[in-house]
Amino acid sequence: MLPPTFARASVTAMHGYTPGEQPGLGVRVVKLNTNELPFPPSPKVIDAIREIDSESLRRYPDPTAASFRAAAAKVLGVQSDMLIAGNGSDDILTIATRTFVPPGGLIASCEPSYSLYPVLSAIQEARHVGVSWNANYTLPIDALLATNADAIYLANPNAPTGTVVPLASIAELAQKFQKLLLVDEAYIDFASPGTSAISLIESHPNIVVSRSLSKGYGLAGLRFGYAAARVNVIHEMMKVKDSYNCDAISILAATAAIEDQAYAQACWARVGEERERVHVSLTRLGFSVIPSQTNFLLATVPSEAVGREVYQGLKQQGILVRFFDKPGLSDKIRITIGSGQENDAVIAGLTALLEKQKAA
Amino acid sequence: MLPPTFARASVTAMHGYTPGEQPGLGVRVVKLNTNELPFPPSPKVIDAIREIDSESLRRYPDPTAASFRAAAAKVLGVQSDMLIAGNGSDDILTIATRTFVPPGGLIASCEPSYSLYPVLSAIQEARHVGVSWNANYTLPIDALLATNADAIYLANPNAPTGTVVPLASIAELAQKFQKLLLVDEAYIDFASPGTSAISLIESHPNIVVSRSLSKGYGLAGLRFGYAAARVNVIHEMMKVKDSYNCDAISILAATAAIEDQAYAQACWARVGEERERVHVSLTRLGFSVIPSQTNFLLATVPSEAVGREVYQGLKQQGILVRFFDKPGLSDKIRITIGSGQENDAVIAGLTALLEKQKAA
Repeated sequence: MLPPTFARASVTAMHGYTPGEQPGLGVRVVKLNTNELPFPPSPKVIDAIREIDSESLRRYPDPTAASFRAAAAKVLGVQSDMLIAGNGSDDILTIATRTFVPPGGLIASCEPSYSLYPVLSAIQEARHVGVSWNANYTLPIDALLATNADAIYLANPNAPTGTVVPLASIAELAQKFQKLLLVDEAYIDFASPGTSAISLIESHPNIVVSRSLSKGYGLAGLRFGYAAARVNVIHEMMKVKDSYNCDAISILAATAAIEDQAYAQACWARVGEERERVHVSLTRLGFSVIPSQTNFLLATVPSEAVGREVYQGLKQQGILVRFFDKPGLSDKIRITIGSGQENDAVIAGLTALLEKQKAA
Repeated sequence: MLPPTFARASVTAMHGYTPGEQPGLGVRVVKLNTNELPFPPSPKVIDAIREIDSESLRRYPDPTAASFRAAAAKVLGVQSDMLIAGNGSDDILTIATRTFVPPGGLIASCEPSYSLYPVLSAIQEARHVGVSWNANYTLPIDALLATNADAIYLANPNAPTGTVVPLASIAELAQKFQKLLLVDEAYIDFASPGTSAISLIESHPNIVVSRSLSKGYGLAGLRFGYAAARVNVIHEMMKVKDSYNCDAISILAATAAIEDQAYAQACWARVGEERERVHVSLTRLGFSVIPSQTNFLLATVPSEAVGREVYQGLKQQGILVRFFDKPGLSDKIRITIGSGQENDAVIAGLTALLEKQKAA
């Protein structure tokens, strides 16, 4: 037990966010617990990093990451001043919280969703309220509005369910809610075309869409994300970010990554195929699997099994998946879609585990 | 004029921090305005970056930057759990502010000092008060205590003056002030041995020392900084930082940089020699120069000249220095210590300028 400090009471009382387990590089595990892409980033990213010179390291980087924003704007079909770059989408979420949520304010999000949202609220000295999803993970618009929140954070596709709400629901919520509607699209690259709320920004001034290169571009180690919003909204967020929040190397690497759409789209297509295959295999094993538009599946364990035991049984076999000991999630495991070989391993591991449990 | 948004009133009202001008890479200027090191980073940094593989980019990085903290702990002679790594020391300052300063609270710092402190206060919905330095830039302990602030931010060495306050004064202030005393040591590498407040942490639990690799290690483009404090203080700051605030490449590069102390110390010694030479030359030209323990000089222009005109006159010659249009600073320019050639250029530029002004 550490002695108390002079930290703010709300910080002392809070628990930090718990990242998924990260075995050291070189440790041989099948790692399907933190939703990394199973493929390396585009070779053009490595090329860009190899070309970094001393001069780019010695000098301060471009504070606005203009080269990345120009490249991303082209891909997304928006103006580049509708974009802000961040040190991972966590940085974007922090910037948005600080820009729009007053201390003492309230953030609402659906439950279950990304477990960082309550932590972001606590750090900002704001409160957080979770609103249960409607049946089939449809958007509880009235219940969200009834919270009278200062901001609504909506992960779409959602984690850890993998589900998507239609754009019409998001538009309706944005219309009825006058304050920040942050749509967290960390997993958008694995979703069906037409899912992104970026298309709603023109008609809805209170939508901020956050994006990440961690999942879809295989760059979790690089820390790069961005947000899209109206120009005046981005202008306010720019004031709140650290002046040089993105480093010279990551700006170059992220630019190379987003420019190589052909490579990225091939990765997303393969993840989609593997997701289908794993879904079918899990169903055959007796799991109840929620259809996913992400690079993971949330699967309810067969009735005779226990979520925590399945998670631990896999871990003993050197296979990491994610288990959340929370209401509504403790009978489930979340499995990242890996390479073909990794997916075979987790299916084989689960098959062995369930047979052993049946025999016991 | 952009239309208003739903941003917090305090954000809407504030001006963001203004970074120094950054001409594009390849633009030929003598750039002595943002205190970058005139030498490239250690060759071992480039080697480390060249060795980055796809796997390190694909996976999430170590959330605590353990390898860097172990290397830095060895150099500093502290335990590694007394250190927290950040995405530049700006990130460290932001984390400290959010951990220790309540919304509605008050941050005090000496005036003039780093112009980011009032911006950090405004973003945190806190107030900021500037306290004038005592004569010869000694520490105004009683005046700082009289502010009844929630935190005191002390840049030591100070920017833009280049001056240092002795450890005994910092110890006295820490003793009398029960809350956060943040000692910002961004420029410590250029100061005399025995200047760092890290040695005070053992006896003063409320001191947090922040450090940067931007200046002393020639890595402004990399974004890497750290803080040293008691273990329980670091524990609270860890909760507030973004989970993965340092990327895989920067952790490797920063580790290589801090391990190569021989290279770094040779750079600092050369900066010290050049600083002496530029100081003497400026004095000969009629400038009044404050003795500096940093990699820049704050120089009062000769009585017949005007600070802004000197700054603009140099700019017309392709030489960038920093000018602050603020009380007590508008008769001064701040000149980064560059390479021998760059320093020759600024002295020649000033000589020409003053002769021209005399002739006019």
